[in-house]
Amino acid sequence: MAETKKVAVIGWGNIGTGVVELLYQKGIAGLELTRVVDIDLETKRNVELPASYLSKDWKDAVNDPGIDIIVELIGGIEPAKTIQMEALKQGKDVVTANKKLLAKEGESIFQMVSALDRRIGFRASFVGGHSLIHELGQAGTAAKKFKRIYAILNGTCNYILSTMSSEGISFEEALKGAQEKGYAESDPSDDIDGKDTENKIRIMLGLISNSYRSAGPFPVEGIRDVTLQDIEYADELGYSVKLVGVIEQKEGAFDVAVHPALVPRMSLLGSLEGAYNGTELEDEYGVVSGLVAPGAGTYPTADAVIKDLLDIAEGRTMPMPDSAESLILGPIEAVERRYYLRFSVADQPGVLAQITDIFWKYNINIAGVIQKESASKKFVPVVMTTYLAKEGDLQAAIEKVDKLEVARAKTRIIRMLSAST
Amino acid sequence: MAETKKVAVIGWGNIGTGVVELLYQKGIAGLELTRVVDIDLETKRNVELPASYLSKDWKDAVNDPGIDIIVELIGGIEPAKTIQMEALKQGKDVVTANKKLLAKEGESIFQMVSALDRRIGFRASFVGGHSLIHELGQAGTAAKKFKRIYAILNGTCNYILSTMSSEGISFEEALKGAQEKGYAESDPSDDIDGKDTENKIRIMLGLISNSYRSAGPFPVEGIRDVTLQDIEYADELGYSVKLVGVIEQKEGAFDVAVHPALVPRMSLLGSLEGAYNGTELEDEYGVVSGLVAPGAGTYPTADAVIKDLLDIAEGRTMPMPDSAESLILGPIEAVERRYYLRFSVADQPGVLAQITDIFWKYNINIAGVIQKESASKKFVPVVMTTYLAKEGDLQAAIEKVDKLEVARAKTRIIRMLSAST
Repeated sequence: MAETKKVAVIGWGNIGTGVVELLYQKGIAGLELTRVVDIDLETKRNVELPASYLSKDWKDAVNDPGIDIIVELIGGIEPAKTIQMEALKQGKDVVTANKKLLAKEGESIFQMVSALDRRIGFRASFVGGHSLIHELGQAGTAAKKFKRIYAILNGTCNYILSTMSSEGISFEEALKGAQEKGYAESDPSDDIDGKDTENKIRIMLGLISNSYRSAGPFPVEGIRDVTLQDIEYADELGYSVKLVGVIEQKEGAFDVAVHPALVPRMSLLGSLEGAYNGTELEDEYGVVSGLVAPGAGTYPTADAVIKDLLDIAEGRTMPMPDSAESLILGPIEAVERRYYLRFSVADQPGVLAQITDIFWKYNINIAGVIQKESASKKFVPVVMTTYLAKEGDLQAAIEKVDKLEVARAKTRIIRMLSAST
Repeated sequence: MAETKKVAVIGWGNIGTGVVELLYQKGIAGLELTRVVDIDLETKRNVELPASYLSKDWKDAVNDPGIDIIVELIGGIEPAKTIQMEALKQGKDVVTANKKLLAKEGESIFQMVSALDRRIGFRASFVGGHSLIHELGQAGTAAKKFKRIYAILNGTCNYILSTMSSEGISFEEALKGAQEKGYAESDPSDDIDGKDTENKIRIMLGLISNSYRSAGPFPVEGIRDVTLQDIEYADELGYSVKLVGVIEQKEGAFDVAVHPALVPRMSLLGSLEGAYNGTELEDEYGVVSGLVAPGAGTYPTADAVIKDLLDIAEGRTMPMPDSAESLILGPIEAVERRYYLRFSVADQPGVLAQITDIFWKYNINIAGVIQKESASKKFVPVVMTTYLAKEGDLQAAIEKVDKLEVARAKTRIIRMLSAST
């Protein structure tokens, strides 16, 4: 039996409250909560702690030689980074849910963990609730390389998009509803502009590649421009619109992006509703698996923190990127996708011919067309889906289409992803 | 760096071929294939091995002191059991895909592993392709208890049921197609009568309870009686029909069963098509997660075997039931479910009233009814869904209904499961 590990929780907010409840009130064998730090000790929490546990100064935890593990739950870059680095230097292990820090400063943190032979648990930082981290981590060692990851990683966006679809409401209405229900922040930009998904994808890329080097920039597009009209067309075509993070590995380079996408409705990702997160993985043999877990919430995240603490306490292997190899991102222009295109064009003869003529020159093949008779005689929406085309070709073609005299608004482009599960 | 482990593969069939290909042809760091045993060494395989590797006698592997890990892939009870027990006694670790053996004789095997402080990898025996075993295994130690597991564990059944649904064909036609495509054996009874699912559920129950004691019998019903008509009614109600294994934990007792069930179409389990397996888990805080992986195939299973081998080679913790505590199964009569019921009754006034009168006496509340005008005037199908009712009450009520003078055939009962993911 391993000795009991002494744990300090820094950050007594939403997730911290859950972690404190599990450690102090429920009690978990092998783990003992000895200190809780927060700048606000006045707000009443669901669990009352003896005053001797409490401090407003994180140094009381990090410099205490009696503490084995620091749980950093304050989020953001500073002072979170200093807290983690100091804790490691003091010979402590670290558990964190801080995706922003690991995505942006993972290089310093992981290098320090590696250099000092310490351990860091961070499954709560990208997708808690299950052992995805073990899946990805094994890829770095020997077992297998992933060809492809498609993931829904932001519960707020998935809630908004699935509510737009199920209730037939606009993005603005769905966002407002999500804010009222506590699924979206009053400033929702990190979520809906895709930055949160980008952070999580960067952490997953580190695990898959086994490198803690920060990858260069990649395309990140949020869901502000997803309209109910596009969701309804997608539905008619048998697809759901989801915000996805994509990683594909090709000859040593990674294609990485975050964007809305049409995914088949009857699939693990397409059928995912509410604030859930989901991941579909394809390995080098074409074997596809998938995982689904809550994308937010006190208990799912606190549970992921506890799992990391137990991995440390019980001496389990904990995956972590530990090489300094540079990550090469493939050129976005070479990525091949199917596309959903919604044109707004003048309702007059010959329009389709002009578009298909441009497409023919750029090797873009049309898979389907929906053109309904329009009530307005000013313009008509035309929806097309393409077969696989190169992003560079598609963008060049659409630039041409949008300059046609018949074009009435910029063409809406949404990528399409196939799904196996 | 741990030393390279020497591996013997016993059983050079479909899965064995995949394992041999990965170990010998691809090569995996930390693992060295040194022996392959099969009674048939004549059939040509995709990989040619030096004659010095080959043997027809498993004792050449089990008694060889140079071999560290025995991979048993012959399946069935004997000689698989003797091979595993002898290997353990010789100080070797074991990796196996043998669900039948572990479900029926797991007690002897796990006890031996525990007594000799050896290790056994068996993720290929119930659901390969991902780290579900780590999820379940952690439950046994400290982290969390599972309230509920719903799982689709048989690729053959899922292929048959989803093909019936998508192509509108009968069970017999779908089974024939599955056999032609190699998704079903020429004797498919282990799969379609639910025995394969039962074996896997028993292994999962061991992991969740942490007990290697064999649980008593529980209800097991296969898919032979699922008709296209029921699948079409289910579809109309927004459900898919799936063969599920169910484990629910209530006050120390487990409700366990295998049966066809209506699950919401837009859910992880309901949207699962083809030969995939899927699992939905709910922990004690109500946190729900899900996993999907291929239900069969050479590479998915071989990959699970390799993961177990790497867990051994790299010294990772391997979950295994290791207590002798008796497993208590709850009385099936007390289980509460919603039910789909298809009555075949005479097309005459007052029939619904007779049924609802019986239901009222047994506390069964009707959620929905579909009664279509019938072409045949002999009888009419009436489909009802109920709210939650006790299995005992439901069975008693249906017994009464089936004895009514208006009853023309036995009522078809299919349980309904809710889903969160």
